[in-house]
Amino acid sequence: MDASSIPPLLAAARGVPAPHTPVWFMRQTGRSLPEYRAVRGAGSILDAIKQPDLAAEITLQPVRRYGVDAAVLYSDIVVPAHAVGFGVDVAPGTGPVAEHPLRTSGDLARLRRLAEDDITYVTDTVEKVTVELPADVPLLAFAGAPFTVASYLIEGRPSRDYRHTKALIHTDEVLWHEVMERLTESAITFIDAQLRHGASAFQLFDSWAGALGRRDYDRFVLPHSRRVFSELHERHPDVPGIHFGIGCDHLLESMYSAGPSVLGLDWRTPIGEARRRLGDDLVVQGNLDPALVLAGPGPAIEGAERVLRDNLRDDGARAPGHIFNLGHGVQPDTDPGVLQAVVDLVHERTSTDPDHA
Amino acid sequence: MDASSIPPLLAAARGVPAPHTPVWFMRQTGRSLPEYRAVRGAGSILDAIKQPDLAAEITLQPVRRYGVDAAVLYSDIVVPAHAVGFGVDVAPGTGPVAEHPLRTSGDLARLRRLAEDDITYVTDTVEKVTVELPADVPLLAFAGAPFTVASYLIEGRPSRDYRHTKALIHTDEVLWHEVMERLTESAITFIDAQLRHGASAFQLFDSWAGALGRRDYDRFVLPHSRRVFSELHERHPDVPGIHFGIGCDHLLESMYSAGPSVLGLDWRTPIGEARRRLGDDLVVQGNLDPALVLAGPGPAIEGAERVLRDNLRDDGARAPGHIFNLGHGVQPDTDPGVLQAVVDLVHERTSTDPDHA
Repeated sequence: MDASSIPPLLAAARGVPAPHTPVWFMRQTGRSLPEYRAVRGAGSILDAIKQPDLAAEITLQPVRRYGVDAAVLYSDIVVPAHAVGFGVDVAPGTGPVAEHPLRTSGDLARLRRLAEDDITYVTDTVEKVTVELPADVPLLAFAGAPFTVASYLIEGRPSRDYRHTKALIHTDEVLWHEVMERLTESAITFIDAQLRHGASAFQLFDSWAGALGRRDYDRFVLPHSRRVFSELHERHPDVPGIHFGIGCDHLLESMYSAGPSVLGLDWRTPIGEARRRLGDDLVVQGNLDPALVLAGPGPAIEGAERVLRDNLRDDGARAPGHIFNLGHGVQPDTDPGVLQAVVDLVHERTSTDPDHA
Repeated sequence: MDASSIPPLLAAARGVPAPHTPVWFMRQTGRSLPEYRAVRGAGSILDAIKQPDLAAEITLQPVRRYGVDAAVLYSDIVVPAHAVGFGVDVAPGTGPVAEHPLRTSGDLARLRRLAEDDITYVTDTVEKVTVELPADVPLLAFAGAPFTVASYLIEGRPSRDYRHTKALIHTDEVLWHEVMERLTESAITFIDAQLRHGASAFQLFDSWAGALGRRDYDRFVLPHSRRVFSELHERHPDVPGIHFGIGCDHLLESMYSAGPSVLGLDWRTPIGEARRRLGDDLVVQGNLDPALVLAGPGPAIEGAERVLRDNLRDDGARAPGHIFNLGHGVQPDTDPGVLQAVVDLVHERTSTDPDHA
């Protein structure tokens, strides 16, 4: 296809001009939407994900409502570990919980290799979604990065200090790398399956990597995340990958060196500063503080305008390599009307179509 | 006094050589110590703080047990707001809670100016502690920085996203600065009172400032924290002040520009990197990850050795401007034996006394 027919999200991910700056939101599916609450029912998210018709509908809802430039699969980062029978669930209001956390090499037996057969409900959902999506709206695959998934399995419940994870890292490096290798292969298999069934890009969520200093990140995490990006790049050379974590300003150089096409930023790192550190051509995703969306339309719009200004080059021209997003996931009590105003603002302000601008 | 008679902590804070690298631990008092649990009783920490004999005993316990180089007042960052009757308590296992959080200008009436009369129990404790302390062990005063105290009063309970605080910042800048001015004056009064009654240095805790990007920090927080350091410096020119926050690597330049003598680092920023960014003569405090202390003596000692190595200059000499500490507070379930091993290691490895080294 010629440049103008590339979906805006894929153009921006390659750093080439698009008709407008693409926008999507992490956790754009889910509890913030009344149409989600209407179809979702009770029970674990992991059960809802196993129903392809339901999961596809939920995935499509924010595309229909907001006119965002990407669908993101309704899934969860513990889906692969759950699918191989590790024994992990997602407790409503709490997050991932494992009754028997991963602490010793004996626990590795519960973390067998992921096969595509384990996740046919996911690939079925991907297929259902992609036939429904407009041609200019790609589906994003995603997976949890090995460190963040490991932290959930090792802690057994959401943690603020990652004490068990850090204890394992610093007392049994051999077991740590074995765990990380299995989770690396699992992330690759999980994303590869989604890409082969219709997804066009992917995001690797290393949400909690920022709990580590850079020295530990480089030694215990980076080789594994780098393998995720390099193996997926070998299999799908044209597919862009996004690398994202919260509170990772001190790790940006390392996370970028893992080989993503796009670096996701939380709100702590202005886009211009990331480009000064990592190069003028850096393609970024982000980075409106979700707390400003909760604060109402005024702060949200002002914040979105600041993000757009941060993406201007010294000569005042908009850099093409920007995917607009929040700096973290949408909070469940977010007003969808405010998110709509943000989508509309980004599209209108960045449109190169004179009828639209 | 001549250089050799300056307490090690005060020498290091001035960047001059001491007989050994001083060490103390944030939250060294408290639940990790059996002798604390034996005397503490039930009820809120705010009630215990009001009993000077008890609070002095608790303050002295870690000095006796570990031989640390500083006592730190047994207190809490919401003490001043509690003392003026704002309506804030510390719920065991939860943290600061305010039944009626600060959300509108009407709530300011509950945040009247702090007077020394409001906190005679604190200055009584300071006096009791200082007569008991060895001459080479100073007492550290501390207060919460205006932003972190504001975040507790505004959120009303511990928060991960600081949504109400950020909403106030971005919807009512006038009220925000009024709140910050009152909390600035309160921090100054609180620390000044402790210094006049016997404390020899102080730490300003801006534990949660890292939730902000640098642009917001510089505009909404820095002027106030700078005023704390400058007014205290005017009143007590020889007293060193320490500035500390968690996850603040992206704010270090700004936090240092507030005017502290010493910059506290969490474990994410290696000491050498902080000096590369802020100058070879930067005096630092930190920064062993408390999760490594929880992981046992092996990881704790290895981690402490890394911290000491990080403080070596290019020529291999130890930089005098280092106060050893954790990168965050001691966790309640920490083994005091592991902390003792860390204290002993730091003292032995850094001693310039040939009988001790």
